[in-house]
Amino acid sequence: MSFDHIEYLIKRLSKLPGLGPSSSKRLVLYLLQHKDDVMLPVIEHLGQMAEQIQTCEVCGNLDMVTPCSICSDDNRGGGLICVVEQVGDLWAMERSGAFKGKYHILGGTLSALDGIMPEDLRIAELKERCLKEGIKEVILATSATTGGQVTAHYIAAQFDDCEIETSALAQGVPLGGELDWLDEGTISTAFRSRSKLQSAGNDEH
Amino acid sequence: MSFDHIEYLIKRLSKLPGLGPSSSKRLVLYLLQHKDDVMLPVIEHLGQMAEQIQTCEVCGNLDMVTPCSICSDDNRGGGLICVVEQVGDLWAMERSGAFKGKYHILGGTLSALDGIMPEDLRIAELKERCLKEGIKEVILATSATTGGQVTAHYIAAQFDDCEIETSALAQGVPLGGELDWLDEGTISTAFRSRSKLQSAGNDEH
Repeated sequence: MSFDHIEYLIKRLSKLPGLGPSSSKRLVLYLLQHKDDVMLPVIEHLGQMAEQIQTCEVCGNLDMVTPCSICSDDNRGGGLICVVEQVGDLWAMERSGAFKGKYHILGGTLSALDGIMPEDLRIAELKERCLKEGIKEVILATSATTGGQVTAHYIAAQFDDCEIETSALAQGVPLGGELDWLDEGTISTAFRSRSKLQSAGNDEH
Repeated sequence: MSFDHIEYLIKRLSKLPGLGPSSSKRLVLYLLQHKDDVMLPVIEHLGQMAEQIQTCEVCGNLDMVTPCSICSDDNRGGGLICVVEQVGDLWAMERSGAFKGKYHILGGTLSALDGIMPEDLRIAELKERCLKEGIKEVILATSATTGGQVTAHYIAAQFDDCEIETSALAQGVPLGGELDWLDEGTISTAFRSRSKLQSAGNDEH
């Protein structure tokens, strides 16, 4: 009867992303068997996070402070702003280490089917912010999906009437990608966007 | 700077069984984005479990009460006791639905290398309990590993001087198992333990 409590917890955790029924079972068993050294510290840590987490009022990132640690970092900036769909995309950009400026999180992509209109995303805030902060270039790092691309083009159009430039991530063959395994769309895009290779010997001429 | 807190949580969770760096990241992001409807209820549930979980004083199972819900279930019994290594094995047996009696959890297997001796496992308690409860058969459901089998034979030997029978799970080809993919040991064991097939037509003769 009280075993149901454990099964309920397993079921509940198994619905979280990244966990399935088997991994949830292993996780719960491990936690219960390591109550003092793992389970209680993890619960405490999660509780602290839940208490302190907030959405950055400037960029939409999740952090313990607002403005978030990225927005309040004076070393970041340089007139560039990187627009991403979700917090997870910001994390992915940060992991890559390719960008050391500030971000703006849209909160999704435009979708006529799902009824997501420009006013549902943080697009007006983006333009306002760019003008206020004297941004020179808006890098649209939305996904290479239909929704992501439509959103990027819509945002670019909003900046037509001002001096701020817009750019988008390059599309092509991913690093380590084998042509044999890539979809036709990616191959066509990479083909159209091909760039000239300069051999070291030709540089001189 | 405070983003480190999130990264620390991701790192911490990624070390739990069933979670890796990527699934931990997805999990933390999901939790943070669903603070009120998922994160807080999960924390509360985990906290309750951590507070109430205990080890059954009779069988060694984990439950909210001791004796655990299996040990205090009067419908279970029938003079049989199933001996398993760990709580996870008890859960696996319960899932199979094959056994509706009581359990005894050893807490591991004998291992000379790791210095695990009979007195480190709950073997003395097992015999005492079997004599007290009038058990007729001890089913040794230890793993089909060297450690598990050594432990099973050691326990069986402890019951040589009394009327209690000992048995072990059958070893052979697992359901759905293809010979081509099985190890030699399993095939040899299944071959040695082969059983007679009776065709329906031959039953009469």
